[in-house]
Amino acid sequence: MAIVEATIVPIGTSTTSVSKYVADCHKVLQDVKDIKYMLTPMGTIFEGELDAILEVIRKMHEIPFKEGAMRVSTMIKIDDRRDKKGTMEQKLNSVKEKLDM
Amino acid sequence: MAIVEATIVPIGTSTTSVSKYVADCHKVLQDVKDIKYMLTPMGTIFEGELDAILEVIRKMHEIPFKEGAMRVSTMIKIDDRRDKKGTMEQKLNSVKEKLDM
Amino acid sequence: MAIVEATIVPIGTSTTSVSKYVADCHKVLQDVKDIKYMLTPMGTIFEGELDAILEVIRKMHEIPFKEGAMRVSTMIKIDDRRDKKGTMEQKLNSVKEKLDM
Amino acid sequence: MAIVEATIVPIGTSTTSVSKYVADCHKVLQDVKDIKYMLTPMGTIFEGELDAILEVIRKMHEIPFKEGAMRVSTMIKIDDRRDKKGTMEQKLNSVKEKLDM
Repeated sequence: MAIVEATIVPIGTSTTSVSKYVADCHKVLQDVKDIKYMLTPMGTIFEGELDAILEVIRKMHEIPFKEGAMRVSTMIKIDDRRDKKGTMEQKLNSVKEKLDM
Repeated sequence: MAIVEATIVPIGTSTTSVSKYVADCHKVLQDVKDIKYMLTPMGTIFEGELDAILEVIRKMHEIPFKEGAMRVSTMIKIDDRRDKKGTMEQKLNSVKEKLDM
Repeated sequence: MAIVEATIVPIGTSTTSVSKYVADCHKVLQDVKDIKYMLTPMGTIFEGELDAILEVIRKMHEIPFKEGAMRVSTMIKIDDRRDKKGTMEQKLNSVKEKLDM
Repeated sequence: MAIVEATIVPIGTSTTSVSKYVADCHKVLQDVKDIKYMLTPMGTIFEGELDAILEVIRKMHEIPFKEGAMRVSTMIKIDDRRDKKGTMEQKLNSVKEKLDM
């Protein structure tokens, strides 16, 4: 199981606001099963089977093009751990415990 | 005001667990004023004045070395918007509204 | 056609040197057709059809696991432009011309 | 000594071409001493003292704003190794040797 972060940004859209594109990208997620995700102020973080997540991000990457963008910059950060089942929650808690938070 | 994400990872530490290093990096944040931050499963997101944030990240980057790491990989993603005051909260809400979340 | 950068780093390998892993990842590339790539000091940059490139990176991401790594951090940066055929060379030349280099 | 990659992209500029901005960012580099750098199709890679490099990138990040951009997305990837002096050239050669290139 992997934790993956994706940031999808259209380039050259004549407006500094990209929330409409981000929102439309997220509509892709509504049909998705077996993948957890959370929205952050800098992107979306997924938890699940790596290939399934990459397939979803691949679909999200197409959305801005469908809405007229001609250039899209997508960043994907994969944290893939196979010695133990790492979830988003465990990862956060593991740090918070050590911080006494 | 900018929103900045940082991920700090020690390389070659002989253990796949990096939460101890992440926790120690966050201790730097306890003395910090005028910067908001949130922990995510993939890093830390900051909101505040860009130079102040970069100074904090620079300090955090030193922590794994102080604890014996010999190589540190740090990723910084800056979203700097000057047409309006963008906060982490507004950025998230802007997307959520469009999603009817 | 897209230009894509990938950085694949094993975590917790007890040595700060990752060149062996990087080299093995690149052996995957020797069977690859229709994709151009270049090695940089920070990763590998690919030029070609997006899905073909992502498939190659997906294979490269598995290599460190096959050699004993238990955690792998992979970063993928996609620059996908559809208004004109952007190659690595054109992208570089476009900047160099403006710099009179 | 560190190796650092930076990618600076203006958002909402109404044109998909960002080479003009990239070129102007690089003009900052012409006065820089003691830092090596190379242009890649995905950004700029620097080699030198970490604080000096970060100062240069900080200046480059301001350039698109000076030319009218209202939002700039900058990504910085730091590879900081202190067990031995790692240069861009050594890093590349270390992989190439293992590949018999």
